Amino acid sequence: MDNAGLNDATTTVGELKARALAFARERDWEQFHAPKNLAMALAAEAGELMEHFLWDTPEASREKTAGDATRRARIEEELADVVIYALEFANMTGIDGAAAIERKMALNAAKYPVEKARGRSAKYDEL
Amino acid sequence: MDNAGLNDATTTVGELKARALAFARERDWEQFHAPKNLAMALAAEAGELMEHFLWDTPEASREKTAGDATRRARIEEELADVVIYALEFANMTGIDGAAAIERKMALNAAKYPVEKARGRSAKYDEL
Amino acid sequence: MDNAGLNDATTTVGELKARALAFARERDWEQFHAPKNLAMALAAEAGELMEHFLWDTPEASREKTAGDATRRARIEEELADVVIYALEFANMTGIDGAAAIERKMALNAAKYPVEKARGRSAKYDEL
Amino acid sequence: MDNAGLNDATTTVGELKARALAFARERDWEQFHAPKNLAMALAAEAGELMEHFLWDTPEASREKTAGDATRRARIEEELADVVIYALEFANMTGIDGAAAIERKMALNAAKYPVEKARGRSAKYDEL
Repeated sequence: MDNAGLNDATTTVGELKARALAFARERDWEQFHAPKNLAMALAAEAGELMEHFLWDTPEASREKTAGDATRRARIEEELADVVIYALEFANMTGIDGAAAIERKMALNAAKYPVEKARGRSAKYDEL
Repeated sequence: MDNAGLNDATTTVGELKARALAFARERDWEQFHAPKNLAMALAAEAGELMEHFLWDTPEASREKTAGDATRRARIEEELADVVIYALEFANMTGIDGAAAIERKMALNAAKYPVEKARGRSAKYDEL
Repeated sequence: MDNAGLNDATTTVGELKARALAFARERDWEQFHAPKNLAMALAAEAGELMEHFLWDTPEASREKTAGDATRRARIEEELADVVIYALEFANMTGIDGAAAIERKMALNAAKYPVEKARGRSAKYDEL
Repeated sequence: MDNAGLNDATTTVGELKARALAFARERDWEQFHAPKNLAMALAAEAGELMEHFLWDTPEASREKTAGDATRRARIEEELADVVIYALEFANMTGIDGAAAIERKMALNAAKYPVEKARGRSAKYDEL
C-alpha cells in the first residue's frame, strides 16, 4: 500500500492478488474468507455499485461516471471493493484469474459468434 | 483468445481490459455497455457465483472449491464472468483498476487498523 | 398447492408464509434455512430477475413485461422465488412482514417528504 | 401509513401493494419504476440484507436475528425494503403476487419431490 503508483499498464493480476492476501493475513482474516462468505461479500459490494445507477437511464449512467469527481471517486471505490473480493476469492480457492478469464472468453466467443451477435443484446439461446 | 497461456504472474490488468474491450467491440456491444447495465450484469453474475454455495456452511464451501474438477470449473467460469464485467466497467468509465484498488486498500487499512481488526469480523463501525 | 385460486385481493401474508413454511418442513429443509443462507438465496434470485433486463432501457423493460406471455411467465417465476425466500426469512426469524413494511414505509416517508421528493429520483441525502 | 397495526394474519398482499403504489404515486415516482430499475433496486436491497451476515456461520446468523433488538430492527428494515420493491414490481407489471407464488410453489414441488428432496440441499438437477 505504501509504494503508490500502481496502474493497469504495469500491474499484474498476481501483484494485486498478493496485496489482497497480505491485507487479509495481517488481520488474521483468512479464517473468515471461505468461498461462500467471499461470494456473498462480492455480491453485496456489487449491490453498492448498482446503487449509484438505480433510477438512471443507461445514457444518464454514462454521464454520471464521466462527470462530478466526488461521485466518480465513490464509484471507483465500489468497483475496487468488488474486485478485491474477487482477488481474494481466487486466492482462497487457488484459481488463476487470468487463465480463468481467457478460458471463459473463449467459451463466450463460441456462444456469441461475431456474425450472429453483432449489434444484438439477445442472450445466446435467443440469438 | 486463441493464444492460450495467460496466467496471473505475467498478465497485467491492462491486457485483460484490452481483451474485454476487443470482445465487446468486435460485436458492436459498446452501445449496450453503459455503467448501469454493466453493474447490473456484474451483480447478476455474482448471484450465479453465490448459487454454488447457498446451503453450505463456510467450511463446506472450502471443500467444494477444493474438490471435484467439474464443479470447480463452473465456479471459475462464474468468477471470470464477474471480473470480465468489472474490466469492461473500467473500460467504459476510464477507471484505472489497479490504481483504484491501491487507493481503496489504503482506505480499508485506515478503517481496519491491524491492531483493532485482527481476528475479528466486525464491521469497522462496530470494532 | 392443489387448491388453485390464490389472489392478492384475498390472500393474507400469513397464508403465504404458512405455505412457504409447510413446503420447507415437508422436505426437512429448516436446517438449511438459516437467515444467512436465505438472504443469499434471495439475492441470487434477485440476480435471475435482473437477467431479463440487463441490456434494456428502462422503457424497453416496461414493454418486455407487458408483451410476450412466455417471457412474462418466466419473470413472474423469478419474482415469486424472491418473495418465497423473503417469506421464509420472515418465518425463520419471527418477523411480521406486514408490520415491518408498515414501519419501514413510515421511515421512508420521513426520508422522502412528498414536497421534496416529488418527481425526483435523488437519494434522500441528496434531495 | 397512518393507521398503525398491520400484521401478517389480517393483511392481504393487495393491501400492501396498494400502499406501495400510493407511496410512489404521491411522489410521482412511477416514471422511475420501470421493471429494470425495480429489479435493480430490489437486488441492491438484498445486498444490504446480506451485509448483516457476511462473515457469520449459518448458525451464528440464527442467533444474530434472535438477539439484540437494534440489530433485529435493522434487519427487518432491509427485508421490508426488498419486499416493498417486489410489491411495486408487481404493481408496475400487473403481476398477481399470490397467484405467482402459488404457481411457482407447484413448479418447485415438482422439481423437489418430498421423497427425493427430504433433508437434502442439492439442486434439483443433482438430486
